[in-house]
Amino acid sequence: MTHRVVNFSPGPAAIPLAALERARAELVDYQDTGMSIMEMSHRGKHYDAVHNEAISLLRELLDIPSDYEVLFLQGGASQQFAVVPMNFLRADQSADYLMTGVWSEKAIAEAKCYGKTRVAASTKDGERYTRVPTASEIDFDANAAYAHITTNNTIYGTQFHEYPNSGNVPLIADASSDILWRKIDVRQFGLIYAGAQKNIGPSGITVVIAKKSLIETGREDIPKIFQYRVHAKENSLYNTVPTFAVYLMRNVLAWIKQRGGLSVIEADNREKARILYDVIDTNADLYRAPVEKASRSTMNVVFSLPNEALEKAFLEGTSATGLVNLKGHRLSGGIRASIYNALSVADVQRLVDFMADFAKR
Amino acid sequence: MTHRVVNFSPGPAAIPLAALERARAELVDYQDTGMSIMEMSHRGKHYDAVHNEAISLLRELLDIPSDYEVLFLQGGASQQFAVVPMNFLRADQSADYLMTGVWSEKAIAEAKCYGKTRVAASTKDGERYTRVPTASEIDFDANAAYAHITTNNTIYGTQFHEYPNSGNVPLIADASSDILWRKIDVRQFGLIYAGAQKNIGPSGITVVIAKKSLIETGREDIPKIFQYRVHAKENSLYNTVPTFAVYLMRNVLAWIKQRGGLSVIEADNREKARILYDVIDTNADLYRAPVEKASRSTMNVVFSLPNEALEKAFLEGTSATGLVNLKGHRLSGGIRASIYNALSVADVQRLVDFMADFAKR
Repeated sequence: MTHRVVNFSPGPAAIPLAALERARAELVDYQDTGMSIMEMSHRGKHYDAVHNEAISLLRELLDIPSDYEVLFLQGGASQQFAVVPMNFLRADQSADYLMTGVWSEKAIAEAKCYGKTRVAASTKDGERYTRVPTASEIDFDANAAYAHITTNNTIYGTQFHEYPNSGNVPLIADASSDILWRKIDVRQFGLIYAGAQKNIGPSGITVVIAKKSLIETGREDIPKIFQYRVHAKENSLYNTVPTFAVYLMRNVLAWIKQRGGLSVIEADNREKARILYDVIDTNADLYRAPVEKASRSTMNVVFSLPNEALEKAFLEGTSATGLVNLKGHRLSGGIRASIYNALSVADVQRLVDFMADFAKR
Repeated sequence: MTHRVVNFSPGPAAIPLAALERARAELVDYQDTGMSIMEMSHRGKHYDAVHNEAISLLRELLDIPSDYEVLFLQGGASQQFAVVPMNFLRADQSADYLMTGVWSEKAIAEAKCYGKTRVAASTKDGERYTRVPTASEIDFDANAAYAHITTNNTIYGTQFHEYPNSGNVPLIADASSDILWRKIDVRQFGLIYAGAQKNIGPSGITVVIAKKSLIETGREDIPKIFQYRVHAKENSLYNTVPTFAVYLMRNVLAWIKQRGGLSVIEADNREKARILYDVIDTNADLYRAPVEKASRSTMNVVFSLPNEALEKAFLEGTSATGLVNLKGHRLSGGIRASIYNALSVADVQRLVDFMADFAKR
């Protein structure tokens, strides 16, 4: 029997076993072609079917309107930090950023290479990013080239549960760590980007969902490889796509659909977060959750214990029972349970049971 | 028994079966960790060992000097077309390009976004890229920011068998389609880049080998994600690396080493090319090789038959005997046998036998 642990890794993160087993079964001989899917041309019929199925599944699961493109790019969210302003921010323009963590800070720093940036809201000073700003705190510039948010902040365990209204200014979202946690209204956004390695698949593939009319406003004097327009026109086959990463993503998306789609996934995610925050709040003397309740993430549950010795005992205890990768980010310390889509309610229940038991001892 | 064909795909291309089988064996449980290598943090000890082993193997196989960095990036050669000039070409400078095919043309087009370009030699007009320029034909600009060559041209089946001497100007090579076909003197180059999907692994990972002193001259006012300096400083872990692609590349590199290293690989590659060009030349009335002999590629053997009906019969015949993906590029038509490292002499002999037999009929 295959040995599998419950993997709370923040990313690259757990992938549904069904998606991996499907890959294993056909790894050296894809559908009797006598070769792996990764040994085939990205322009051949076998890969083409996988590529388009992945796009269709994303469209179906997220109800993506027909005036939005779905693109598969490389370089992760970190590259999108630069490619978004390269396309949409002119030197004489300004872009708004909601500063909610280190990843937003990095996005802002890259944008400064192309134009002006403006912080429309920040929860850094005095609050150490322990919440996301409320709608009334956000001061959008009506003339901004775009407004940028990070929908979920993995390090701090915060998440936007409602997205701010940026009016006529296109809202651009880094949704790397919570895309597909539930259905969203894509029309609220001009562009959504997400590195796949949390909720959709392996690292090395980036999903971009963008309004066609926004893509058309992008600069044309930048390299073709960085123009969303070029990738849209070529159905993400302008250059060689990471075929195996797309294939694995397809397997994950098919698993989501087979489970019943995003309403089932959302119900599970809410239940996973509920039972985990419950055991924290019930044992508040032991488990300290720094995040304001309204901003608590359903994907990354962050807490600490009163001292390092207890945290060490906690990590050793969980690890010994097959609950792994619970150590917090080096910037924040403590414990972090990343409970992305691939983790089941039963998986999280095992952690909850351990935590209740650990609190008793 | 596993069904495997002989796969002459130009890329993504055949991967050694041993590298794939190793991946399959541990796909859902890597070294008893209870998870796949692709479900782990890129900063954890298991992935770290794979990452550094891949770098060490490349260093060992190619004898890479210690004053050169080995980087693992994303976006393929197409992204390097833009990232090279973004780093090294200032608006008031000019860069030299050897124009030897469509890929060089694309590299030139991307560079024009950043500065001036100059064609130091071209075999396009009147020759349709059927050879690479000789040393005496190349007119290097001693003041160029760099000189760029494409070491092997997959579409046309041409290859540089000696690299031109650009003097004090750093020579930058797109070696995507022939890296590791033999040992080269890395010191001839300032920077070498290669998409992995021909000779090293799956698509989605790009190898860059660059002289440290060149990296240090790169611009610092461009986004961090595009600065070679940043990736060098972080050992290619500045952002999330495509971990599974690196892992597979490691498997391929380990296979090369286990086979005896690049001297064995080179001998095989020379023998594969020799027997294939031999059967072409011996049957020159049927198989027409457009490439000048001195420029013939050891990786992509291009030829045509007198008419489309014969080419169709040839492709149907090869396909029926498990010799697949031999159709030429849409730009050049005809037949193309890509015989990268993963193909054995015996594999190519099967094609040669078919060709001799087809010529008799």
